[in-house]
Amino acid sequence: MEDLLKQILKDIVPNENERKKIKEIVQRFKKKTEEAASHYVKEYEVFLGGSVRKDTWISGEADIDLFLLLSPTLPREEFRRIGLKIAEEALKGYKKIKRFAEHPYLEAYVDGIRVSIVPAYKTSKGKWISSVDRTPFHVKYVESNLRDENARNQVRLLKKFMKGIGTYGAEVTVKGFSGYLCELLIIKYGTFKSLLKNAVKWKERTIIDLENYYKGDLETIIRVFPRDPLIVIDPVDPSRNVAAAVSKRTLGRFVSACRSFLKNPSKCFFYPEKREIKIEDEVKRHGKIIFLLLKHGRMVEDILYPQLERLSRKLVRRLEEMGFNILRWRPFSDFKSKSVIFIELESDIISENYLHLGPSFFNEFHEESFLKKNLSKGFFVWIDEDGKWKAIKRRKITNAKEAIKSVLKEGKIIPHGLKEALKAEIFIGGMEELMKRRGLLKFLKDFLTIREFWIGTYEGSN
Amino acid sequence: MEDLLKQILKDIVPNENERKKIKEIVQRFKKKTEEAASHYVKEYEVFLGGSVRKDTWISGEADIDLFLLLSPTLPREEFRRIGLKIAEEALKGYKKIKRFAEHPYLEAYVDGIRVSIVPAYKTSKGKWISSVDRTPFHVKYVESNLRDENARNQVRLLKKFMKGIGTYGAEVTVKGFSGYLCELLIIKYGTFKSLLKNAVKWKERTIIDLENYYKGDLETIIRVFPRDPLIVIDPVDPSRNVAAAVSKRTLGRFVSACRSFLKNPSKCFFYPEKREIKIEDEVKRHGKIIFLLLKHGRMVEDILYPQLERLSRKLVRRLEEMGFNILRWRPFSDFKSKSVIFIELESDIISENYLHLGPSFFNEFHEESFLKKNLSKGFFVWIDEDGKWKAIKRRKITNAKEAIKSVLKEGKIIPHGLKEALKAEIFIGGMEELMKRRGLLKFLKDFLTIREFWIGTYEGSN
Repeated sequence: MEDLLKQILKDIVPNENERKKIKEIVQRFKKKTEEAASHYVKEYEVFLGGSVRKDTWISGEADIDLFLLLSPTLPREEFRRIGLKIAEEALKGYKKIKRFAEHPYLEAYVDGIRVSIVPAYKTSKGKWISSVDRTPFHVKYVESNLRDENARNQVRLLKKFMKGIGTYGAEVTVKGFSGYLCELLIIKYGTFKSLLKNAVKWKERTIIDLENYYKGDLETIIRVFPRDPLIVIDPVDPSRNVAAAVSKRTLGRFVSACRSFLKNPSKCFFYPEKREIKIEDEVKRHGKIIFLLLKHGRMVEDILYPQLERLSRKLVRRLEEMGFNILRWRPFSDFKSKSVIFIELESDIISENYLHLGPSFFNEFHEESFLKKNLSKGFFVWIDEDGKWKAIKRRKITNAKEAIKSVLKEGKIIPHGLKEALKAEIFIGGMEELMKRRGLLKFLKDFLTIREFWIGTYEGSN
Repeated sequence: MEDLLKQILKDIVPNENERKKIKEIVQRFKKKTEEAASHYVKEYEVFLGGSVRKDTWISGEADIDLFLLLSPTLPREEFRRIGLKIAEEALKGYKKIKRFAEHPYLEAYVDGIRVSIVPAYKTSKGKWISSVDRTPFHVKYVESNLRDENARNQVRLLKKFMKGIGTYGAEVTVKGFSGYLCELLIIKYGTFKSLLKNAVKWKERTIIDLENYYKGDLETIIRVFPRDPLIVIDPVDPSRNVAAAVSKRTLGRFVSACRSFLKNPSKCFFYPEKREIKIEDEVKRHGKIIFLLLKHGRMVEDILYPQLERLSRKLVRRLEEMGFNILRWRPFSDFKSKSVIFIELESDIISENYLHLGPSFFNEFHEESFLKKNLSKGFFVWIDEDGKWKAIKRRKITNAKEAIKSVLKEGKIIPHGLKEALKAEIFIGGMEELMKRRGLLKFLKDFLTIREFWIGTYEGSN
């Protein structure tokens, strides 16, 4: 494994040329930002953050994050307006994209390098006004705990590994490990290899508290973060779980990949081969796939994707209540013009008849209402061996597409932010319609492809 | 209700003519039995039992049970041989049928009245050798506790009601209330009406201990009879539950019928109308019905029926494991040449694909075996949102008839007593084949008919 890791490092540690180039851009835009800021405010500081500052970026993937720190006395509106103005001036002459975290910020590409200028409040520790205000403290914590170059390269290995297996990034579409989280894990475990060896032993709820804020009081930690499968207390803010974004699925995929890698170290974890699947062949080992297509305008990922997930989850739950057996589901979106929810079912047609469990004969009140309700509809009703009333009922809807249509009509299932999008154009279809829509095939491929590629080492390929 | 009950009683209390006729037959056969016995043994007693002795029979339905009490010193084989010989001699000239309880006995029809001669051991209380030895003690208990003619007529009402709603008889095919149990219930509650009013308040486990053997120690009673939904301690033997045969379904049907009757007293509970159903119409509100036909020779009810039930239950459980949703099932038999098991399913065809739930990613050992097993078969495998491995598997069998065939091939599912019968001829079919087999239509009608007819009063008819 050591040789393999050395070889990977050769590729991912930036060389002097790259460092020089990045340094030059940083200095240039730091200066531009300071200059621009001086026209608008008295107090300001331009602070380089991100992996470039921390020296943990992967060669060829540097992003320059310049934080424009402004006075906490500025009111929010003022802060936003002035922040954007300064960023605009600093990036003059470049094509700018407006992005949104808690506040808007700008990014532009300079010689192929992404440069972001992010306004933040300059506060003291713990007095943060917006969540981005924490960043300088994160940067300083990592800097003082990753002084060793080798340690920083371990972060690079971990990030590359995470990217390879698809668990890197706290975005709503990934639900994975942020760069800061990767750094903290290396601070905790020392090396990439040591982290892997520990990760495969992680239990149902793993808790990492680097600064020992909670003094081992696991009960309190779990009460504070009851749903998070991985809890890494932020060394600069004990009320925050740095791993809050990590879903069970992502955690599971990471741990499983670690296990596979330790057994069978291979380059493919860092550089996964692009897998070409033939949809027609792949579909044979799947259930019935139906899809719900939504057309809409440009939408923000962080807002749209969780709503798509909520809609999918509710839809699936209602379909299950209606008698359908759901195998898998997942939403996709280009965030520009369309989103699609795939639902894979055991069968998209179910039988008309089903067993309805009624009350025990002991319960006079429930017996009466059960009998009245079911007899008036002509259902077959009887007391079964277990002493409970039962009925053979009839489903009105036995077709999954119809079922989705009827559920959507209920209205209340649709998250507020999707109401508009859903009004525009909805299409519900099966495989046939799917194959005709070229624009959806990329999504379909993603849906049908197993991202847990490393399990191929267990037997044949998958 | 009082008028209705009076009217029923007019029909079911035997008149003087009937009593005289019965009395004459009893005396004639008592004498014959005594005479025959005197040829074989020194010690004997002929004891009239049953509802004729207790004066609780329903007009026109008298059965004469003569117990031939023999010395407990007789070895079993000797007892059986001599007992049968005496019975044969006593019934000479009549067409005799050999029946089996714990021991064989004979019955014959005399002027349309069934006369049974049942050998038993004459023992003291509690020293019973065979279960029928208890009978004289039961008879005496009821005699001394039902001295009042009105009380005996209440038993008649109860029996007629039980027969009407189909809960009378401890036979394996009914799983209902024996005559003795009906008598004890009237001894407990005084009148038919009072019993009904109490029965509708019966709870999950009702315990009646007339002689207060257990002094209210319900815990012990439940430990002794853990599965019986109704527990009526035998006044002549505290280790026995007189209601042991009563199933949850029968108990439920009785309680529900009591409730209906109290709300809406009607003659139909005692004299249910024969319901004519049109199978074709009825089938429309049912699921898919498939049947398993067994051809066999004459078989004893008490032996065959529980085995048919066991086979059905196992079959149903296996079908459920294979992915079929079962609505109802029930075996029928003529006990002469054929038995049939009906199984009603949501659908007799299920989809090929199904979701297989695997282990959590935490469990390395299970993960490995799960992956190896499923990947080698080319199933689609992934870690789901809940952090668990899942697979989309393929069913080999998706047709219920095929499924039954394959389950029967496993062999071990078949109860020992049915092995022979099953070897002979088995047929598995659906509705079409069923409609062609006239001999099965009566059974099918029973299967499709609701015996809980009184629920018709709740709404329309069923």
